[in-house]
Amino acid sequence: MQSTGVVLHTDKYQINMMYAHWINGTHNKKVVFEAYFRKLPFGNGYAVSAGLARIVAYIQNLRFEESDLAYLSEQEENYDPGFLEELKQLRFTGSLYSVKEGTLVFPNEPLIRVEGRMMEAQLVETALLNYMNYQTLIATKASRIKNVAGSDILMEFGTRRAQEADAALWGTRAAYLAGFDATSNMLAGKMFDIPTKGTHAHSWVQSFDSEEEAFDRFAQALPGQVTLLVDTYDTLNSGVPHAIELGKRLEAEGKQLSAVRLDSGDLAYLSIKTREMLDKAGLPYVKIVASNDLDEHTIMNLKVQGARVDSWGVGTQLITAADQPTLGGVYKLVAREGADGEYLPTIKISGNPEKVTNPGIKDMYRLIDPETNKAIADYLCFPHEELVPKGESLHLFNPSHPYLNKQLKKYKSEALLVPVFLEGELVYNLPSLEEIRLYHRQQLDLFWPEYLRMLNPEHYRLYMSDEVWETKNRLMKEYMSK
Amino acid sequence: MQSTGVVLHTDKYQINMMYAHWINGTHNKKVVFEAYFRKLPFGNGYAVSAGLARIVAYIQNLRFEESDLAYLSEQEENYDPGFLEELKQLRFTGSLYSVKEGTLVFPNEPLIRVEGRMMEAQLVETALLNYMNYQTLIATKASRIKNVAGSDILMEFGTRRAQEADAALWGTRAAYLAGFDATSNMLAGKMFDIPTKGTHAHSWVQSFDSEEEAFDRFAQALPGQVTLLVDTYDTLNSGVPHAIELGKRLEAEGKQLSAVRLDSGDLAYLSIKTREMLDKAGLPYVKIVASNDLDEHTIMNLKVQGARVDSWGVGTQLITAADQPTLGGVYKLVAREGADGEYLPTIKISGNPEKVTNPGIKDMYRLIDPETNKAIADYLCFPHEELVPKGESLHLFNPSHPYLNKQLKKYKSEALLVPVFLEGELVYNLPSLEEIRLYHRQQLDLFWPEYLRMLNPEHYRLYMSDEVWETKNRLMKEYMSK
Repeated sequence: MQSTGVVLHTDKYQINMMYAHWINGTHNKKVVFEAYFRKLPFGNGYAVSAGLARIVAYIQNLRFEESDLAYLSEQEENYDPGFLEELKQLRFTGSLYSVKEGTLVFPNEPLIRVEGRMMEAQLVETALLNYMNYQTLIATKASRIKNVAGSDILMEFGTRRAQEADAALWGTRAAYLAGFDATSNMLAGKMFDIPTKGTHAHSWVQSFDSEEEAFDRFAQALPGQVTLLVDTYDTLNSGVPHAIELGKRLEAEGKQLSAVRLDSGDLAYLSIKTREMLDKAGLPYVKIVASNDLDEHTIMNLKVQGARVDSWGVGTQLITAADQPTLGGVYKLVAREGADGEYLPTIKISGNPEKVTNPGIKDMYRLIDPETNKAIADYLCFPHEELVPKGESLHLFNPSHPYLNKQLKKYKSEALLVPVFLEGELVYNLPSLEEIRLYHRQQLDLFWPEYLRMLNPEHYRLYMSDEVWETKNRLMKEYMSK
Repeated sequence: MQSTGVVLHTDKYQINMMYAHWINGTHNKKVVFEAYFRKLPFGNGYAVSAGLARIVAYIQNLRFEESDLAYLSEQEENYDPGFLEELKQLRFTGSLYSVKEGTLVFPNEPLIRVEGRMMEAQLVETALLNYMNYQTLIATKASRIKNVAGSDILMEFGTRRAQEADAALWGTRAAYLAGFDATSNMLAGKMFDIPTKGTHAHSWVQSFDSEEEAFDRFAQALPGQVTLLVDTYDTLNSGVPHAIELGKRLEAEGKQLSAVRLDSGDLAYLSIKTREMLDKAGLPYVKIVASNDLDEHTIMNLKVQGARVDSWGVGTQLITAADQPTLGGVYKLVAREGADGEYLPTIKISGNPEKVTNPGIKDMYRLIDPETNKAIADYLCFPHEELVPKGESLHLFNPSHPYLNKQLKKYKSEALLVPVFLEGELVYNLPSLEEIRLYHRQQLDLFWPEYLRMLNPEHYRLYMSDEVWETKNRLMKEYMSK
């Protein structure tokens, strides 16, 4: 095992295609790819874009090192030495457009557009999808949980159950940008400046002769943040009474017990009883933290049952997106350089009409009602099209739903794809994580609640311009007639 | 964002407990933890242990760097500078025992045992569980798929859908050790010497004027490994006929078409038809590769339907363990140093009897029938107990199933926990990945097929010695009487 850079975080078929293009002399041909997903996860009405910060770092570090080239040449005797020399020189010299992190996004919307030499645009597919798929998935899951938790505190607690180390780290970042308040993950705290929280484990209690002694010693060591885990032996008969005794003693010393944590059993019943016991003991300021396989469904149900929880620790279900652990984003060729240097739109046909790609280089706009300041729909068009023809209305047409055919008279528009790299140069000023969090909240404000609800949300529409639709239709007919 | 080591890949409560022990003067007390899972994933009859290589590297690199200490001291004004100095000196000086990678393991079996100073044994919990949980989960999923695929070739294709980069890399390694034959992941190929495979994407076909031209150019570039993806436009009317045309031309040149790949549609029907077309054209040697959201269930069903597939590319469902994306392993204190330096067994009580821990430092043996050479059961006992009393039989007793109470007369035994670190020194000679693969196959041979089948497997038993059971019973009574 040797340490290594990021460039081989890719599939072999990318390297094979790069080689075949190089042999064929087509490796410098310009191509355009779009990354998108076809179906929203969890039955949600939207997804939350995430992954761009990671993608930017990846693109900037994209280079074949000597050990990578040595590996490739050992592996494949076919490879011409000239190809390896080409790889050695390879840097990302193309352009990359992306929606910003925290943006609400929908099926079939280009979240990333890559324009560049065939060699480069092909190489980056796997890593881009890997980062985009996972982080967008977790940000979406976190946004659902935030939706249910309201103003309660949400803490990410999933590191031990995450699918390896990177998932714990980048999943935590995705959760925070979508509304979580803190994490237990110290590396995420250090790298992304996310607030960290933690109490103690059952092992702390077990390592003393009694629960009383364990609580007492913990409060002495960390007087500023005394949260006690009360379920090591018996929550209501041992843990909570011992916590209350300590809370009263701390009060007498002019200090305070911060919270108790419930980590097993019937959290509705236990939190209600614990609240009663704390209040009766004159400790109404002591908070209740709950954890144990929580997600948006359990939290909603606990709230309906009157659970008295101030702060939720969410682990496994969030960090693995357990009910749907993959987003399924794809990366499809939408245009290629023709013989005369012009871009030709390309299409992929499929037996399943939903899987036929939208050809051509497309821009994407969010159309907003200037009176309510709420989003109306998203809109794909070619860059040369005038989005706002003088005085005319915009024709909204969706080929999957031809009856949804309307003229939009008054609207504002926001471009959703922003330039991140232009001809290899980073031109995007990466926002801070706090700025992304704020932007995400503003994005939520842009949508009517009907689109945001957890169950059976209203379907937000993506329209395409007449010209995009005509191009798609023409290409479909061409291929079907072959 | 700054680059960083592994030591902060942990939960804040570990650092809090380390600090509280340090303040309390108990940080050098010796403790023993065991890592185990309580429930098998996927309804399988066994799990496949994996993650140890990653854990060894983690333990060896465990140190707080200046940037980590600076982060901790900024974060928490409470921390005494003496504590940070203690962290700066911290190395893993304890002992770690583990089952070998590739071993078949079962619920409540200690897969890892950590003995050491409180500070160190607590710190490593999160990372150990993170690595063990994910890699064991994926190795188990891969073993299920291998069970169904028999001698067909299995390829791991999941990188783009993995939960971030580490999952793609370490998940691939776990799949390979449990019987997969190759991967598309180039980094896994480089780091672990796993064979890599790849063909081309739809984008290769789309980037030429016609499918015929795309196939032809690909075969010219990579004559040694011509596998063609045949579903870009229409599998049976375009892709396969064009592949056959090329196959015949290659034959005429003394070359060969290796395979065609089906990536969408009804794989049973398409593979049968494709096989017929290839055979009829005189290309019986051309293999068929199938991919598209496969797992053990779809592969079994396709085989029952007579699908003619030689090689399976398995992605999302394997690399995310989509039907159960977490193992849920835990790390529990089983013993602590008492006032006189002796180890005291510890227990964690729970309202759920399955969750009460097994106290004390335990060894684990696999008991094997010397005549059939098949595993009979696994067995927990204290290190001082004589596993083979002279001439006597072994009493097998399981407290959850008291009727399963028998005397075992003839058996061999194999110790399942091997020393990996002793007092901080690595004493385990890490086997190569090929050796682990071979060992895993030998492990499978040790079990009757009833334990290995995919659906409703027979329940393999873990027994404990009378002394372990008596200790548990005594501690439970002590705590319940408080």
